[in-house]
Amino acid sequence: QKPRKATPQTGEDTLNGHLPPGWQSYMSPQGRRYYVNTFTNETTWERPSSVPGTPKSPPANSPSAFTVNGYHISGTPVHQLDSGHMSLRKASGDPQINCVTFPHPDIMPEQQLLKPSEWSYCDYFWADKKDSQGNNTVSGFEILLQKQLKGKQMQKEMAEFVRERIKIEEEYAKNLSKLSQNSLAAQEEGTLGEAWAQLKKSLADEADVHLKFSSKLQSEVEKPLLNFRENFKKDMKKCDHHIADLRKHLASRYAAVEKARKALTERQKDLEMKTQQLEVKLSNKTEEEIKKARRKSTQAGDDLMRCVDLYNQAQSKWFEEMVTTTLELERLEVERVEMIRQHLCQYTQLRHETDMFNQSTVELVDQLLRKVDPAKDRELWVKEHKTGDIRPVDMEI
Amino acid sequence: QKPRKATPQTGEDTLNGHLPPGWQSYMSPQGRRYYVNTFTNETTWERPSSVPGTPKSPPANSPSAFTVNGYHISGTPVHQLDSGHMSLRKASGDPQINCVTFPHPDIMPEQQLLKPSEWSYCDYFWADKKDSQGNNTVSGFEILLQKQLKGKQMQKEMAEFVRERIKIEEEYAKNLSKLSQNSLAAQEEGTLGEAWAQLKKSLADEADVHLKFSSKLQSEVEKPLLNFRENFKKDMKKCDHHIADLRKHLASRYAAVEKARKALTERQKDLEMKTQQLEVKLSNKTEEEIKKARRKSTQAGDDLMRCVDLYNQAQSKWFEEMVTTTLELERLEVERVEMIRQHLCQYTQLRHETDMFNQSTVELVDQLLRKVDPAKDRELWVKEHKTGDIRPVDMEI
Repeated sequence: QKPRKATPQTGEDTLNGHLPPGWQSYMSPQGRRYYVNTFTNETTWERPSSVPGTPKSPPANSPSAFTVNGYHISGTPVHQLDSGHMSLRKASGDPQINCVTFPHPDIMPEQQLLKPSEWSYCDYFWADKKDSQGNNTVSGFEILLQKQLKGKQMQKEMAEFVRERIKIEEEYAKNLSKLSQNSLAAQEEGTLGEAWAQLKKSLADEADVHLKFSSKLQSEVEKPLLNFRENFKKDMKKCDHHIADLRKHLASRYAAVEKARKALTERQKDLEMKTQQLEVKLSNKTEEEIKKARRKSTQAGDDLMRCVDLYNQAQSKWFEEMVTTTLELERLEVERVEMIRQHLCQYTQLRHETDMFNQSTVELVDQLLRKVDPAKDRELWVKEHKTGDIRPVDMEI
Repeated sequence: QKPRKATPQTGEDTLNGHLPPGWQSYMSPQGRRYYVNTFTNETTWERPSSVPGTPKSPPANSPSAFTVNGYHISGTPVHQLDSGHMSLRKASGDPQINCVTFPHPDIMPEQQLLKPSEWSYCDYFWADKKDSQGNNTVSGFEILLQKQLKGKQMQKEMAEFVRERIKIEEEYAKNLSKLSQNSLAAQEEGTLGEAWAQLKKSLADEADVHLKFSSKLQSEVEKPLLNFRENFKKDMKKCDHHIADLRKHLASRYAAVEKARKALTERQKDLEMKTQQLEVKLSNKTEEEIKKARRKSTQAGDDLMRCVDLYNQAQSKWFEEMVTTTLELERLEVERVEMIRQHLCQYTQLRHETDMFNQSTVELVDQLLRKVDPAKDRELWVKEHKTGDIRPVDMEI
């Protein structure tokens, strides 16, 4: 029984356009179409568009049959999510990707998203992804983890950027402060001299404003960005190992199933062969030997069932931890974005503040400039430097 | 006849305090007190206080008997200014300072300031000033000229200061612009990535604001300050030489008067001697010789009168030019102060502008930060990176 592949209907594609390269379309027994990316193993209920990431409306008929409360899911989530359908006995070999077993196209169960309309991490990263050459694969979880680490890197780089701004402000402040103490035109006197002196001083005031800015940049933006989640990489490593270990365990249980399956096949072959031989009286095998072969065959069947059970347990455990952990990663990412947003707002707030404070540094200069009075300055200067107000008179003989 | 020195009246000084060191007080025949600085030759109607430059109310009884319209004074200003008094014949030697003749304390004429209450240059710089050791003198006009040249120097130094500010702004702009192009955290995506990108761009906008500031500083403040009165030093040199030449001319006319005075004295001595000799019949001088001596004496007297006339003309000419030129210097100084004031106002205007423009560079960043949406960013990212939304199911046997 091969999967019933639904070749693309001309009518439908005229409506929706061609699938992107590599994608195939299938019909589930319930009549719901689903799509498989033959390059990367991605499977999805949603029709892929040629442009990755084009927003698509979520499936119309997805009642929230199962909502995830908190991070812990009890029972065997896989069974519960198959809304009402019993798992039917199938032909040999469910499709598996790296020892994770996915539904066979013939009996694709009805699946609703765990968190519809939320584009949640827990819904979209089940399959492993093949790389472009198709040789190595990387798990969905790996991809989520890389995203987290990249986020941490971004936070660090933003802090570095702020540090560079701080350096620029400190240089500017230093230059203004130095120029403020310059003695150019210090000999200007009177009301004009006062206004000039204040103008020079205002540069020192500007320098203070910029130093304050750089100081707050450090304490209110750079430092928080640097220190947020200091142990993050360690925590992510733990996550990584935890989930990877569950996958390894899953893989080893899968290998056990394969081994048990092989053993059963051999035992069955042996039984069949011995039964045939009895009928054609080809050998001197007694019924005793056939009974033994039958017993071994039954035992092998039991072994296989046990192995499959153990496998399913392992897969359930992994599934549970996947949902829990990916939802945690999702929450962490929301927090990260929010934290950064807040601190960038702090940056703009400090910029506003700085420009305001800077404005006030010229106010006193303006005041003194309004008071500049050439007549007054002349009076002051003449009083200090006059040589005599008695005028000469004619010489007498 | 010695000058009638009025020793300081105890009553008066109890009211007003002691005169500063070196100053003497005199009473004019009209009963008006005046003061002489024995160190520097300064003479003034105003009582000097111990603190130079302390504001004093102008003389109560100074009707504006003579106002200076424009810069040209017709006639002999000295005579016109002696309000009503005729110059009396005096004893030998009006006080003179470097060949400029000042009123004798006995017949101090009533003098009103040419421009009362204005502390005008034309009223206060008649005498030459002795330096601290009392060896060299510098004319009042020299002092005014030095003030002008110093003013030009101040203007130049202010322009230099602005140039330094320009350099600081250009450096700041260059640093901001460079940092703006830095690729730190360029990999941040979605709404957060957009806000971050705009934050980085805002630094380039700030750089533009500061470049504009520095550019306007140059064209609207530095350049005008540098170029105002480019030929000023040359013009002042001309002034200097013009007045100095008149003083030299005055000095030579004064020397001529002294020479003529000596000649007259000798002729008179000769006449007296010859007349005496005739009476005591000591010599064989004839009446003819006496007549000759008398003639020469009279001629010497006429010569002296002519020399005095020529001197007075030269002094009047110098006086006229002094009033004209010092008033021009005064006007130039008022203009200079006003020009500087305007351009310093331009500086503060540009500072206000700059801070305002700078404020607007973070507005767009604020807008984008308000739009930061972790859920949206998750949707975008998941759509691009998802590996599969079909969940695994139990393995069947």
